Amino acid sequence: MRNIKLVVEYDGTDYHGFAIQAGLRTVQGELESAVAKVTGSRTRVVGSGRTDAGAHALAQVVSFLTDSRLTPVELRRALNANLPPDVVVKDVEEVGEGFHARRSARRRHYRYCLWNAELPSVFARRYRYHVAEALDVAAMNRAAAALVGTRDFACFTYGAARFLAAGRRRTTVRTIFSAEWNGEPPEVEFDVVGTAFLPHMIRNMVGSMLRVGLGKVSPEDFRQLVERADPQLSTAKVPAHGLTLVAVEY
Amino acid sequence: MRNIKLVVEYDGTDYHGFAIQAGLRTVQGELESAVAKVTGSRTRVVGSGRTDAGAHALAQVVSFLTDSRLTPVELRRALNANLPPDVVVKDVEEVGEGFHARRSARRRHYRYCLWNAELPSVFARRYRYHVAEALDVAAMNRAAAALVGTRDFACFTYGAARFLAAGRRRTTVRTIFSAEWNGEPPEVEFDVVGTAFLPHMIRNMVGSMLRVGLGKVSPEDFRQLVERADPQLSTAKVPAHGLTLVAVEY
Repeated sequence: MRNIKLVVEYDGTDYHGFAIQAGLRTVQGELESAVAKVTGSRTRVVGSGRTDAGAHALAQVVSFLTDSRLTPVELRRALNANLPPDVVVKDVEEVGEGFHARRSARRRHYRYCLWNAELPSVFARRYRYHVAEALDVAAMNRAAAALVGTRDFACFTYGAARFLAAGRRRTTVRTIFSAEWNGEPPEVEFDVVGTAFLPHMIRNMVGSMLRVGLGKVSPEDFRQLVERADPQLSTAKVPAHGLTLVAVEY
Repeated sequence: MRNIKLVVEYDGTDYHGFAIQAGLRTVQGELESAVAKVTGSRTRVVGSGRTDAGAHALAQVVSFLTDSRLTPVELRRALNANLPPDVVVKDVEEVGEGFHARRSARRRHYRYCLWNAELPSVFARRYRYHVAEALDVAAMNRAAAALVGTRDFACFTYGAARFLAAGRRRTTVRTIFSAEWNGEPPEVEFDVVGTAFLPHMIRNMVGSMLRVGLGKVSPEDFRQLVERADPQLSTAKVPAHGLTLVAVEY
C-alpha cells in the first residue's frame, strides 16, 4: 500500500466541520467519496485535526493508504475533478509508511480573522467575524503574550473532564509557540502557532482577548485569568466562520 | 417628498441580478422590500444601472422618493436591519429633487477580477474568474488601450438592434475614459471607467482581451477588430461572477 499526503484548501461555510458524521455534509466525507471514486476503493482519510462547522482551511493536511497506481499529479487532477468547488486539493505527495496526518503533526498554525469596521462587509462575511466597536489592538497583543508557553489550557475549552476521559493518554496540556494580532482595521487577525488545540480553545481565546480590546478587561487582568485558569475564559467563544487552519508542520 | 440616495454593497452570487423580476430574488427587489418595511409605503428604487445575475457591487447607487421623517443615520440602520447579509447600505444621503441614480450618473467604474493560477481558490471562487493558463498582461494592456475613446460599442454586446429599438433616444455609442489591467497573478484585474456600458459589453471585452493574453490574437489585431467592429468581439463573454461595480460618479 502507498501512503499519500494531501494538502487541502476548503471554504467550510457549507460544511458541518471536517470530521465525518453520518448524514451530514463534511469535508472528510467529501474527500473519502472522491478518493473512493478515483482509486476504486473506499478508505479512511485522516486529517491533521478536526475543524469546527463553518471554519476554513488554507492547508489542511490529510493522509490515506491506497493501492492505486496513479501518480501524484494524476491523483490531484482526478480528485479535484471529483470534489465540489469549495474543496481543492492543492498538493499530493507520496510519503513514507510512518507518516500519519494527525500523529506526525508537530505544529499547527491557525488564524482568526476579524472585520473591524462600523458596517459589515458582504465580501468578508463568510471569512471574517464582524466587530463594529473600535479595538485596542496593542492591548490585545499584550494579552496574547500571556498565552505563549506550555500549560494546561483546559480553562479555554468545554467538557475537559469528558475530553480527558475519552482516551488514557489524553492531556489538556498544550504548547503555544507564538500568538499575535496583526493587520489594520478593517482587517485584523490573530495568528497562533501551537502543538495542537483543544475544542473551541482558539475561539475562546479570541473572545477573551476581544474583552481586552474593548477595554472591559486589562491585559494584566487577562494574564492573571490565564494564570489561575479562570473558568470565565471558556465563556467568550466567537463564531467559527472567522477561523482558518493556515498550515501544519511535520 | 424627500429624495434619498443610497450607496449599496452586495454579493450578487445568490441574486438574479440587480433589476427586479417577478418571482426571482433580485437586489432591487430586496431593497424595495426593506424600504417598504422601514418607511411604511412601497416605492420604486432606481439603480445607477443593472448588474448581471451573479455580478457584484462595492458601491451601487440607488435613489428613491419617500415622505418618511427618518434621518439618514436612522434610515441606514433600519434598512440594514431589514436586508439580508449579502446586501449592505453603506451610506444614506438626502439629495435635491433633480437627482436620479441612473439619469444623473456621469461615469461608472467596473472591475473584472481574475484568479490567474494553475489551481482555483475556494475563497476567490465567488468573486474571481479562474484562468489556469499564464497570461501576457502587458499584451492585454496594449489591447485595452484600443478601447479608450468614444465609439459605437455595439460589436461588444448582443441584440443591439433590439436594444436600439427599445427606446427612441437609445444609442450604442459610449465613451470609455480609461481601461487597464492591474495586479499580479494570481490576482489580476481589469479596471474600466466609462459613461455607461451596454449589456455584456465588459464581459465580452474581457474575454476578447483574454484571447490576446493567451497569445491567440495580437494586440495589433485586437485593435483592428475593435476599429472594424468585428462581430467576433461579441463571442468571448466571460462569467458574470468576476464583475463588480466599483463606483458611480455624478
